[in-house]
This record gives sequence, C-alpha cells and structure tokens, in this order.
Amino acid sequence: MKRALVTGATGFIGRHAQAALRERGYDVVGVGSADADLLQPAGARELVDRVQPTHLLHLAWYAEPGLFWTSQENVRWLEASFRLLHAFQGERAVVAGTSAEYDWSAPSPLVEGVTPDRPANLYGAAKLSLSQVAGHIEDAPWSFASGRVFFVYGPHEDPRRLVPQVARKLLAGERAAVSEGTQVRDFMHAADAAGALCALLDSGDVTGPVNIASGEPVPVRDVVGIVAEEAGAPERVDYGALPTRPGDPQELVPSVARLRDEVGFQPRYGLRDGLRDAVEFWRGEPLSPA
Amino acid sequence: MKRALVTGATGFIGRHAQAALRERGYDVVGVGSADADLLQPAGARELVDRVQPTHLLHLAWYAEPGLFWTSQENVRWLEASFRLLHAFQGERAVVAGTSAEYDWSAPSPLVEGVTPDRPANLYGAAKLSLSQVAGHIEDAPWSFASGRVFFVYGPHEDPRRLVPQVARKLLAGERAAVSEGTQVRDFMHAADAAGALCALLDSGDVTGPVNIASGEPVPVRDVVGIVAEEAGAPERVDYGALPTRPGDPQELVPSVARLRDEVGFQPRYGLRDGLRDAVEFWRGEPLSPA
Repeated sequence: MKRALVTGATGFIGRHAQAALRERGYDVVGVGSADADLLQPAGARELVDRVQPTHLLHLAWYAEPGLFWTSQENVRWLEASFRLLHAFQGERAVVAGTSAEYDWSAPSPLVEGVTPDRPANLYGAAKLSLSQVAGHIEDAPWSFASGRVFFVYGPHEDPRRLVPQVARKLLAGERAAVSEGTQVRDFMHAADAAGALCALLDSGDVTGPVNIASGEPVPVRDVVGIVAEEAGAPERVDYGALPTRPGDPQELVPSVARLRDEVGFQPRYGLRDGLRDAVEFWRGEPLSPA
Repeated sequence: MKRALVTGATGFIGRHAQAALRERGYDVVGVGSADADLLQPAGARELVDRVQPTHLLHLAWYAEPGLFWTSQENVRWLEASFRLLHAFQGERAVVAGTSAEYDWSAPSPLVEGVTPDRPANLYGAAKLSLSQVAGHIEDAPWSFASGRVFFVYGPHEDPRRLVPQVARKLLAGERAAVSEGTQVRDFMHAADAAGALCALLDSGDVTGPVNIASGEPVPVRDVVGIVAEEAGAPERVDYGALPTRPGDPQELVPSVARLRDEVGFQPRYGLRDGLRDAVEFWRGEPLSPA
C-alpha cells in the first residue's frame, strides 16, 4: 500500500493534493498547521512515526504575502524541512520549490539544471537550499525531487494577489487599475499545480528540480483581459494605470519538457477555463476590502 | 571592545585563528567540540549567551576525511549553523565556505558572484546553503561574509591527505607514489587561511563569498617536488604511479582579487616556506601508519 503524507494540506495548492493522490491509488494523510507543528523540534518525528508514510509531499511553508520573500521564518521552515526529511524513511519525497530559485535575469525558457540558480531573496535561497541539500543526500532511502512552482491562481488565492484583486474589484462594480501587463508569465490553476506535484511524487525515477507550470505563457494583460471578460466588465480595466514593477523581467517562462515528457503530466485547465473557475469562486465569496 | 567567538577553534585552520584575532585587537573566545555542543538544540544559544560576542567566526563543521563529502552530518551542521546565526546578535559574522560550492567544470579563475555555483556533493551543497541563506537575511543585526576555502596544508593536517602522505613516506625512508600531478591548484598554509578569515571578519563592509587562497597557483607536482626537496628525498617520488582522479578538473584556480583588494589580505607564507613548515612538523611527529 502506498501511503502519502501531505504537509500544507490545507493551503492554496495543498487543498487539491489529497484528491489527486487518491485518484492515483494512494492512501493519503494530509496535515495542516492545526494537525502538526513542524516548527517544534520533535514535530516532524512525531508526525512521521504516527503516519508511517511511504511517500512524502512537503508543501508546508511560511507564505504570508508581502512578508514571505524576506522573513526569517524561511530559515525556520528550512530547518523544519530538514528534520522532516531526516525523520522520513519512505521511498519518495517531493517538496515545493519556487521559480525564485532561478536567476531571473537569465533568458527564458528557464530549464532545470541548465539555467543558473541565483535566488534574489531569502525565500528563493531557502527553497534552493532545501532542494540542493536534499538532492545531494546519497544515503537516504528515498528518491527526491523538487517541484519549482511558477505562477499559480485559483480559488482561495490570497486576495492581495493579481487575479483576486482584479476579479473582486470588477465583481464589486469598481474599476481595476493594472500595469501595462506586457510581461510574459506562465499561469497555472492551483488544482493543476497540485496535480503536477502529485504526478511528480508518483514518478519515483524523476529526480532533481522539475518546473511546475502550464506550458502556456501569456502576457499578463491577457490574464487580466480574460478575468475581466469572465467578470463581465472588460471595459472597467485601466491598463497602464499602475507602474510596471522595476526590475521585473519582461519574460519569465519555464520549460515544461521535464514535467510533460518525464513526469507525463498534462494540465486539465486551459487558461480560460481556469480563470473562469477562479472568477466564479470570487463571485461566490462575501465581499470584504480587497 | 570587540569580542570574537571562534567555533572550531581547535581545528586544522581554527587553531591559528585566535592569535590572528588577538593581533587585530580582539578579545577572543575559542571553542572546540569539548567546550560547546553546537549540535544540541540549545547549544548555540547557551554559547552565545555565555560569550556575548560582537563578532562570530564560525569554522566548526564535520570534517572526517573520506566521509565529509557525503555524510548527512553536513545537514546536522547546517541546521546547527542556522541556530548559531539565529542566536548571534553581534555586528559581524563570517563562516568557512568551500571551493566545492562552485561549478568545478567552469573555467578558471573562479570569481565570486560571477562563476556559477553548482556543488557536486552534499558538503558543497550544505556550505552553499549556509552562505546563500545567511547572505539573504536582511533584518539581521550583523553583516555576513563567507570565506570560500580552497586547498590548505600545514601542521596538524589529516595524515591521509596529499602533503602529509608524501612527507611522511619520504621522512620514513620510503618511496612516495603520486599521480602525474599536472592539475593546477592553489595551496595555502593553514595559518594564512586563518589569517585571511580573520581579516575578512575584521572587514565588516565586505559581504558575500570571498575566496580564501594564496593567489599562487601551481601544478600539484610542484607541491610534491618542494615537499620532497624539503624532506631531502627528491629522487624517491614516483610521479605517474597513481592514476589521476577521473573527473578532476585540470585547472581549479580562484580569483583572489576580493581577498587582496577589498579585504586587504596578503599571505605571510610563500609556497616553499609554508611547505617547509609542514615538513618540519611531520619530521617532529612520531611515526604511525600513513
């Protein structure tokens, strides 16, 4: 019997992971911060002893928008992650990495093992450390991979981020101010991101970093345009009303060759279907200040 | 008053650090593994509370020859190092890094911040993690630098390594088998490596990785030749009797521009003087199986 332990199982991506793993025939134990305090020295050991997993999908991390890039909580989560991997004696471990592990000034597409790693902040540095260190442990019983997550949207996304902000403004009858949005990015629905991570967990011979992305890069303004159409208010978006973030690369597009060809994963959502799902979620949410 | 805490103070490099720091006017507290168990969860905090250092030179690590490249002890020391930095509230922290943080297939000279980092083993990955993570902590009270140590020799070197092995064979009247030794490396006396790390500690405005090396690269056979001359037995070396290690880069030479120009450090030992000092040390040591 394959038994998967999923940390961060109540999070934005993690909430979709349990269903995806059950589809693949796993017995699944998902834990959130209320179930296990991984930041406590003995937390990881107790959890692993209790669950006895054969597979570990480690998604839990500090994720407070606006703070997570630089907070020293990243170091605490890195230490906690090492303790978790140390305690885990199963056959396969996958962690959530980030596009921020790459050198963002490198030309796209960003290719695993080819594009240089050069994180620009503590979040990227800590995630890269986890991936590099775990990937070099030769005498572990498990094989290891890191899913480098790019831009993810979907239900339950933090309302301070782009898609919820635009959707909620428009659904509330207001105007939405955005930048010109010419930057090209890869957006993926959270359920697909979870599906890809679970497929990676289920691919025990795939090791190292694997980009988690849709393979459908678009200018950010196209994302905003679809959100606006789905919200029924394409005329209420003010493109160029906000400045482009300085230093933001024009193009930040991952290769999805490893995910597609080695893991064999295909997303279920196209961009329009996925954004429609997100907008419908926000339509159903009670309004609060965005 | 500047008070430096030196971990690993009884080690191969660390044993020279206390004198170097006192020369620079520091009050110094050096600790070895007998004085403080940094691997215990509370070890770092207790040590820092006791010493109250303004400066931290963190040299302690797992260093068992033949094992340290791949041992999971590297992860334990990485965790311990994070705890130490977390506890430390002084103004300046320097850790010992390693040449193994670099991509060894990159062309020499290896330049800090320019040559890609790509560790090939767990030791390099763990040291790189420490340097990257600590270097990205923006809200720490200290400035941070990592001294990337290259090839170091001197008294008390582990007898299984090149210089002691050749010296002890020849001093014992035996022949010494070595490779062709055409690979070019940078060798530095342990007292100079310590001096350079202490100079870096004393340079609070220099941050990030700094190569710790002599700036005097030579073919390895020249090192062997000088050792043999100083041992009085140049005719008893068999060059080419051992194979060159497969995958060993022909040239692995660091830039010392940062160390020389930004830190302002100059080595005291030339290669011959330094190797003479090492050979004299081994001459005085009672013989045991090499």
